Amino acid sequence: MNQSQLKSNDLSTFDQYESEVRSYCRSFPTKFQRATGYRMWDVEGKPYIDFFAGAGALNYGHNPPEMKKKLIGYLMEDGISHTLDMASEAKETFLNRFNDVILKPNRLSYKVMFPGPTGTNSVESALKLARKVTGRQTIMSFTNAFHGMTLGALAVTGNKFKRKGAGVPLNHAVSMPYDGYMGSNTDTLEYIESFLKDSGSGISLPAAVIVETLQGEGGINVASNEWLIGLSEICKRFGILIIVDDVQMGCGRTGSFFSFERCGIIPDIVCMSKSIGGYGLPMAITLIKPELDQWSPGEHNGTFRGNNLAFITATEALTYWETEQFAEEIKVKAGLLRNALDEFVSEFPELKGEARGIGLMQGIAFEPGIAERISKASFERGLIMETSGTDSEVIKIMPPLTIDRDGLAKGLNILKNSLQAVAGEKNAILSH
Amino acid sequence: MNQSQLKSNDLSTFDQYESEVRSYCRSFPTKFQRATGYRMWDVEGKPYIDFFAGAGALNYGHNPPEMKKKLIGYLMEDGISHTLDMASEAKETFLNRFNDVILKPNRLSYKVMFPGPTGTNSVESALKLARKVTGRQTIMSFTNAFHGMTLGALAVTGNKFKRKGAGVPLNHAVSMPYDGYMGSNTDTLEYIESFLKDSGSGISLPAAVIVETLQGEGGINVASNEWLIGLSEICKRFGILIIVDDVQMGCGRTGSFFSFERCGIIPDIVCMSKSIGGYGLPMAITLIKPELDQWSPGEHNGTFRGNNLAFITATEALTYWETEQFAEEIKVKAGLLRNALDEFVSEFPELKGEARGIGLMQGIAFEPGIAERISKASFERGLIMETSGTDSEVIKIMPPLTIDRDGLAKGLNILKNSLQAVAGEKNAILSH
Amino acid sequence: MNQSQLKSNDLSTFDQYESEVRSYCRSFPTKFQRATGYRMWDVEGKPYIDFFAGAGALNYGHNPPEMKKKLIGYLMEDGISHTLDMASEAKETFLNRFNDVILKPNRLSYKVMFPGPTGTNSVESALKLARKVTGRQTIMSFTNAFHGMTLGALAVTGNKFKRKGAGVPLNHAVSMPYDGYMGSNTDTLEYIESFLKDSGSGISLPAAVIVETLQGEGGINVASNEWLIGLSEICKRFGILIIVDDVQMGCGRTGSFFSFERCGIIPDIVCMSKSIGGYGLPMAITLIKPELDQWSPGEHNGTFRGNNLAFITATEALTYWETEQFAEEIKVKAGLLRNALDEFVSEFPELKGEARGIGLMQGIAFEPGIAERISKASFERGLIMETSGTDSEVIKIMPPLTIDRDGLAKGLNILKNSLQAVAGEKNAILSH
Amino acid sequence: MNQSQLKSNDLSTFDQYESEVRSYCRSFPTKFQRATGYRMWDVEGKPYIDFFAGAGALNYGHNPPEMKKKLIGYLMEDGISHTLDMASEAKETFLNRFNDVILKPNRLSYKVMFPGPTGTNSVESALKLARKVTGRQTIMSFTNAFHGMTLGALAVTGNKFKRKGAGVPLNHAVSMPYDGYMGSNTDTLEYIESFLKDSGSGISLPAAVIVETLQGEGGINVASNEWLIGLSEICKRFGILIIVDDVQMGCGRTGSFFSFERCGIIPDIVCMSKSIGGYGLPMAITLIKPELDQWSPGEHNGTFRGNNLAFITATEALTYWETEQFAEEIKVKAGLLRNALDEFVSEFPELKGEARGIGLMQGIAFEPGIAERISKASFERGLIMETSGTDSEVIKIMPPLTIDRDGLAKGLNILKNSLQAVAGEKNAILSH
Repeated sequence: MNQSQLKSNDLSTFDQYESEVRSYCRSFPTKFQRATGYRMWDVEGKPYIDFFAGAGALNYGHNPPEMKKKLIGYLMEDGISHTLDMASEAKETFLNRFNDVILKPNRLSYKVMFPGPTGTNSVESALKLARKVTGRQTIMSFTNAFHGMTLGALAVTGNKFKRKGAGVPLNHAVSMPYDGYMGSNTDTLEYIESFLKDSGSGISLPAAVIVETLQGEGGINVASNEWLIGLSEICKRFGILIIVDDVQMGCGRTGSFFSFERCGIIPDIVCMSKSIGGYGLPMAITLIKPELDQWSPGEHNGTFRGNNLAFITATEALTYWETEQFAEEIKVKAGLLRNALDEFVSEFPELKGEARGIGLMQGIAFEPGIAERISKASFERGLIMETSGTDSEVIKIMPPLTIDRDGLAKGLNILKNSLQAVAGEKNAILSH
Repeated sequence: MNQSQLKSNDLSTFDQYESEVRSYCRSFPTKFQRATGYRMWDVEGKPYIDFFAGAGALNYGHNPPEMKKKLIGYLMEDGISHTLDMASEAKETFLNRFNDVILKPNRLSYKVMFPGPTGTNSVESALKLARKVTGRQTIMSFTNAFHGMTLGALAVTGNKFKRKGAGVPLNHAVSMPYDGYMGSNTDTLEYIESFLKDSGSGISLPAAVIVETLQGEGGINVASNEWLIGLSEICKRFGILIIVDDVQMGCGRTGSFFSFERCGIIPDIVCMSKSIGGYGLPMAITLIKPELDQWSPGEHNGTFRGNNLAFITATEALTYWETEQFAEEIKVKAGLLRNALDEFVSEFPELKGEARGIGLMQGIAFEPGIAERISKASFERGLIMETSGTDSEVIKIMPPLTIDRDGLAKGLNILKNSLQAVAGEKNAILSH
Repeated sequence: MNQSQLKSNDLSTFDQYESEVRSYCRSFPTKFQRATGYRMWDVEGKPYIDFFAGAGALNYGHNPPEMKKKLIGYLMEDGISHTLDMASEAKETFLNRFNDVILKPNRLSYKVMFPGPTGTNSVESALKLARKVTGRQTIMSFTNAFHGMTLGALAVTGNKFKRKGAGVPLNHAVSMPYDGYMGSNTDTLEYIESFLKDSGSGISLPAAVIVETLQGEGGINVASNEWLIGLSEICKRFGILIIVDDVQMGCGRTGSFFSFERCGIIPDIVCMSKSIGGYGLPMAITLIKPELDQWSPGEHNGTFRGNNLAFITATEALTYWETEQFAEEIKVKAGLLRNALDEFVSEFPELKGEARGIGLMQGIAFEPGIAERISKASFERGLIMETSGTDSEVIKIMPPLTIDRDGLAKGLNILKNSLQAVAGEKNAILSH
Repeated sequence: MNQSQLKSNDLSTFDQYESEVRSYCRSFPTKFQRATGYRMWDVEGKPYIDFFAGAGALNYGHNPPEMKKKLIGYLMEDGISHTLDMASEAKETFLNRFNDVILKPNRLSYKVMFPGPTGTNSVESALKLARKVTGRQTIMSFTNAFHGMTLGALAVTGNKFKRKGAGVPLNHAVSMPYDGYMGSNTDTLEYIESFLKDSGSGISLPAAVIVETLQGEGGINVASNEWLIGLSEICKRFGILIIVDDVQMGCGRTGSFFSFERCGIIPDIVCMSKSIGGYGLPMAITLIKPELDQWSPGEHNGTFRGNNLAFITATEALTYWETEQFAEEIKVKAGLLRNALDEFVSEFPELKGEARGIGLMQGIAFEPGIAERISKASFERGLIMETSGTDSEVIKIMPPLTIDRDGLAKGLNILKNSLQAVAGEKNAILSH
């Protein structure tokens, strides 16, 4: 790190050498250097509170000490780093711990697939397998869903801008209304069921439904337990597989390890990535009911299926889930967060906010344009917090799950100040 | 690592918990634990020589000391690990070094995109961009090509078994004969050109051609310089972009940093992954001619675009390329390897081998069935070496580029013994 | 016709030589020979009343005398029969008459395309043009729609059995709920509009909507005027073309020449076939708003675009529309028909029928299984009447528009007797 | 025909009311009125010799007297005109005669499907059935093929302009080089076979190959008997169905009823239309080997499957094939035609013509631009003759098969004069 002459917050290297596709560096225009827990520092030493958590990849915070220790230890011993899908001690340990700590206590018995280390890879593997097992081609997905950016995953993603980027038509998928899409009085399952049972609906029987139990990128839309259970029952009735994309909502984000624990459904396939590696290291797994594990060897592959450094931290991360305590703490913090958001909504009625979300995936929806200004104002005050929704109309609060009450309070205070500032601007405009 | 009771080479955890899709662990049935340079050890301490190099992800060997030192140093300082596409000091350093050490000396001026940390992600980003920039949809690819396993990349991959795994038709691509596909007397470019120029050929003008300069997975097929230059000229003539997939052949595998340096063409887009991270850590980049960098911010994204640990080791890896020395050494070792292979082919005429390849991507093609037995016999003797080709008919020798002459000689000796054993079996059968 | 030895109703020739795909000959198992007006005779001289009218291709009845006279006259003069899309006197006369009698009085100014002589050809041409003009690919169609059997038209057809026959996935289309699909209390336009305006809905902006104002094949579903007007307004608001498929509902079937006259919308493109030729001769036209007529010469073609014998009868058929009288008569007969159906529904409550339809496209919906038995019983009694709906649950009454009151009464009497017979069987079963 | 005031050759009605898609009326700008045999007359009584024959729909000439008599007789007796796929006496007679006169003497036993009355309908039905029977999706087609304009048929058509008209990507088809496409020294079957047998070729095993034995629209390319036999053998070896599209080449155009009689192959499916109806009336049939006739009833349908007027003339047309005489006469005339073309090529060396074709489907290929001028010059002199090839570079001579030697000589004389005129213009330009 001998670039000390660049320590100032000069982003010219990125402007000059990095592609125009770069995005978050435009919202948070500084150069980050160090981070621990819920705190980040840029090259000038300015601290930030992290209400973003790597878009859900840092549920356990930045550089958690126990994982760091294990990781450095493994490196020092020349533990093997890259193994494709050869067997390694690190992988074996992860598999055993994952079964002991996560699956067995939840009475689940999934086979674990390592599909390549990204969420979109896990989704692609799930769709391939669902199509193979059923011999069908159509996947049912939902309005405002986000599942990834490679062509297979993009076909089940709702966002028009992202879809257009494909450059080719996205097929073999049908988009159905998510819970609440038609307003709170309309049960969208009725609509879905009528399309499935009617032989004139123009829609083929799907191989699978892919669903997020809470849509994060889509604007923090929470599916109710009743809706998820109903969807699961429809799938059973029609012989459709149900895939839960838990890439962002898994690993405790909504309060339990799997996001679907709250409603008790058992998906046929589960996609996980982001925080599964524990330390922000690329890793993904696809969980498959044993009877559906009909892959031929090597039918899906990828160079980085065997990221052993991630297996080391992933294994350590499971320690959080050995007792109920971690989940309990999330619930408490989720309650505090919700209270604060409700209070903010009341306090700034001119912003017409609507609090949303569960667990530590919460936010406030505004009219278009407001959320981005709040995000900007927060960044200036030392808080990293992104927006979501197709029109970036929602501020998305997803701190590390390990944040302490003090950190949460500090971050919320910055948010409050930012809301005040944006409300002030708005009032100023209106009073003219 | 408290699983000492499992230290024996018992693979039951994998049988029980991992998906049937696992593959290499079937060819190399042991549990790996440690590795340095070209050597790997399993949990029982048995050493192996590595002629596989993580399928090209470990060109600099396992756990190279300088990178390891930098990596541990970064971890100890709580360097930020995961940043999506926010700006970080580690990324900035990589961008500057990559320009100074690689691009400028080669008089290249690409913009760097971080498309997500896998080769298939880089390919998907390249195809999207080519389609966006040209407004066309078809991509021309080649027989026996391998570009990845997500739907977009799979559509330009030749392998029937992999393609079938898609479960949906793979479209918007046209497969053309690679150099040598119709025998050494037929110039396949003539065929390609006639399809392009004829308005009745049934083929739309492609957005891009995607090509490997040497097909590794496809069976070690080397495209001649003339063919590559001719292809590049056809692309210019018809306004088609040329994408070089250097995921496996880049980072020195064929003797120079970019595999296309040998023929002097300048691709419009270059895909890199595998060894770009240096230490086997997931990382990928897509290099784009500045005038083609027409992405909108966030039009392609992904959670693990910002793997800062990989940026640290990737930056260090560039040190190998600061002088000509490393490339020179590869050439010398490539010569030794070719001599040995030629000798083996002569020595075991009953195996009807055909030496192939350039740089440290070489191999011997056999009749179906032979290569797999040689790979097996080698493993038993302590050598990791995979097969390639659609019928696994080629042994693929790709040691770390950093292997010393002694290591190379030892590995080749094992290979020779294995050839002898397989030849012996064959002779035994024939003499009956 | 020297096959007098086959005059008996022996269908063995068809069993032996014709493909298994044949269908109506199974429902109406006799050999037809002659026909006039609403009457048909088989080879044994048995008469039938026709409540089927060639599935809408014989709105003017069988062999109407004036057309027959013109046709024979043209043949005797060696009028040219086949001209592709060369100019002919017969075509010129048709074009002028069609403008004078139909378009101008309705204040419409469409360009006329001859796309090949079948409805599916007209639909394919309409979809091509809509895609060309808008540069978009998706077509919005409706549940239970029927538009034809070639791949482009089949993609916008709802019926699962027909769609499966494609043997390939049917893409570039999205199926939306038709008026009434979600029950009478739900306005399906709200649903459609929410998908169009939401940038996260997963649906691209369509090139066009294709709609039948009354779905005949789909089970006699009548779209309300309000719904059709609302749909037209949505299309305008979003810049989507509206295509009315008037292949079966046009030429007076619902009471006016164009079926959309009742609601006053002006489609961008209109597809016509079936009765447009007047005499059951193959002919189709696609009507295009002049500003959308952006075809290049020959961009869509076909051998039988210029069926001059059909132009002769088509021209003569327009005579029916020179005054209001013909339309008035249809209305009167439609009223008589509806009264009869309502009466039948009341008289046989055990059949739980529901009268449907408008104009001379009416029917009664039953529980599955009933309609086919009624059709069979009617055939045995000398009435040709088919079923429709995806489960063949509706009897479909569509006599020639030229039928006189006496013919209508006779046919309805046979229908009544058939209903009685089927009701009797049902009661017999229930009383056991 | 009371439009006597328009008897002059005023095309304003077409300009004003007909779509821009109209095409042949631009090449042959007059209004046709009457026609018999090989002669046509426009409204002003100007005669034309027909070397076009309705693009192959008028092999028996215009208004052949015996067919006309039968047709008028049927009309006068009120023979039923339109029957969908109900059984009719006229259809029965056709089926029996077609078996007796055509199939049995050729020792063929096809089931006959009536797919709708156009060639593209027949092709769509053939592709559907091939996909259903094999469970595969890809169809192999050939460079410069023409199979129709609906989406399924268009996907196997080579012409870029026509394909682009689809407005959506055309998939599930792979275009392979036709006989002679790579020059006379390259056997394109080798190329095709290597793609089929190689599991890395990027091409799925096709359901079927669709082939014309002579490509008319594609520029009069004749496949050799050896090539057709070789293709048929490849299909057998790989379990691929072979579909011969005999829409234009069937009904005697190349010298025998089926165009494939010359090489002795037996296609699995045959598509026929154009001249099968005899009188230029819309009709098509799909011939299916009995074991492949796996349709469900109604799985493919269409309103005009039962064009009984066409059955009447089609039956009569079979009379030509009751003896060998008709085929013999075609051969004689084909010889005369070839001699004349060879002579023209020699006589006008400055036009660099190349005679092509067999039977009464012959022509001369020129450099781009020449053929259209010859066609224009011929029209002015009273000869109707179109061009073909993707760049309209070939004059296409396809008179009615019934043309007498005198008519042929007269037409060829006009052609010679036209060649002379165009050669003269060219020489005049060159001599400047």
